[in-house]
Amino acid sequence: MSTIETRLAELGVTLPDAPAPAANYVPFVQTGDTVYVSGQISMTADGLILGKLGADMDTEAGAAAARTCAIGLLAQVKKACGGDLDRLVRVVKLTGFVNSTGDFTEQPKVINGASDFLVEALGDAGRHARSAVSAAALPLGVAVEIEGIFQIK
Amino acid sequence: MSTIETRLAELGVTLPDAPAPAANYVPFVQTGDTVYVSGQISMTADGLILGKLGADMDTEAGAAAARTCAIGLLAQVKKACGGDLDRLVRVVKLTGFVNSTGDFTEQPKVINGASDFLVEALGDAGRHARSAVSAAALPLGVAVEIEGIFQIK
Amino acid sequence: MSTIETRLAELGVTLPDAPAPAANYVPFVQTGDTVYVSGQISMTADGLILGKLGADMDTEAGAAAARTCAIGLLAQVKKACGGDLDRLVRVVKLTGFVNSTGDFTEQPKVINGASDFLVEALGDAGRHARSAVSAAALPLGVAVEIEGIFQIK
Repeated sequence: MSTIETRLAELGVTLPDAPAPAANYVPFVQTGDTVYVSGQISMTADGLILGKLGADMDTEAGAAAARTCAIGLLAQVKKACGGDLDRLVRVVKLTGFVNSTGDFTEQPKVINGASDFLVEALGDAGRHARSAVSAAALPLGVAVEIEGIFQIK
Repeated sequence: MSTIETRLAELGVTLPDAPAPAANYVPFVQTGDTVYVSGQISMTADGLILGKLGADMDTEAGAAAARTCAIGLLAQVKKACGGDLDRLVRVVKLTGFVNSTGDFTEQPKVINGASDFLVEALGDAGRHARSAVSAAALPLGVAVEIEGIFQIK
Repeated sequence: MSTIETRLAELGVTLPDAPAPAANYVPFVQTGDTVYVSGQISMTADGLILGKLGADMDTEAGAAAARTCAIGLLAQVKKACGGDLDRLVRVVKLTGFVNSTGDFTEQPKVINGASDFLVEALGDAGRHARSAVSAAALPLGVAVEIEGIFQIK
């Protein structure tokens, strides 16, 4: 088990099998040492995490949803690394989309659910550039979608 | 005519002259072998494709709109390749923005109009990482805007 | 003072200290010669620029807000360059998010506030690929958020 997965186990996190995409595209593309991971939607083994911030979901639940997106991203990165997450050099950039009403203003606190998890799991390698914005709506009604750029070796 | 353009001709697609940007920016920037293409809005030779999914446009029409964005992206990539599309190595990443109401949930099906076209035209080189989200609104009221990252040689 | 900062001074612009991020992420990440800068929200030394285009802010004020995002991006790039902005090779890509109602259509004119400033300040090195879309809402209620990719040497 890689050092990172040992740390994940300590956090009680088991990476799921990397979710397959829902359409005619791929979960990630690598060019050079850069891996672009498709937007991961909020979900657990129990199903999708649906919701709209500012309407039927509070910020804390949104952050928990964002955390599941980060877990999905790591699962894809693991696959991009041929199963060895220790090849991950760092998280470069996240773009976080929050499903929210027009008057919601806590996008950063929601996406912190992903950012905090990545730093907790990866240490300094988890620190990343980031944007956090609201989408008018998201696929299937999920609460959060996050895409990521990663550097691997 | 490049192999790819021959294939496009078989699909009945002629790439338009690469649309010029509407403002003080450029249609694409290349760094190394990576080409970043500006967001292409849904349009044909007949004009803009306007609409809001969930209100006055259905998913099928949205997918057709997304397809025109992909054609616009390829037109820009052709220009980036100095006219020779066979220099395109692969489509790396798309970010698709759908103009929709707050309760629309079929963003992936809309953006599939672009993804399916790229795979149809380019084969495996057309497979890409992707995010599909809703924008609250889009320039000039268009239905779809898609930006892309491409690898060329 | 760098050539670029001399030009900024002529424009009456003093770069602020690079704003620190509001959460567990970093303002920028560099991989190779590429710098990814986190989304910068519209603000001046006097505080946040709040507003929603199509509701309580007009396009001209939105463009002024976008200009402050571009200043924030340059401030971060300066930091990424160890203080010497003349190491900036070019602006590669901007993604501009406009806080707007669902019927707003002048996103490009708003984000032009950033694009025009960058070309005014940097000349051809300021020309970039770009997307301009509406977000349903933005952090803290700001009017504009812009993220950027930059090439430095």
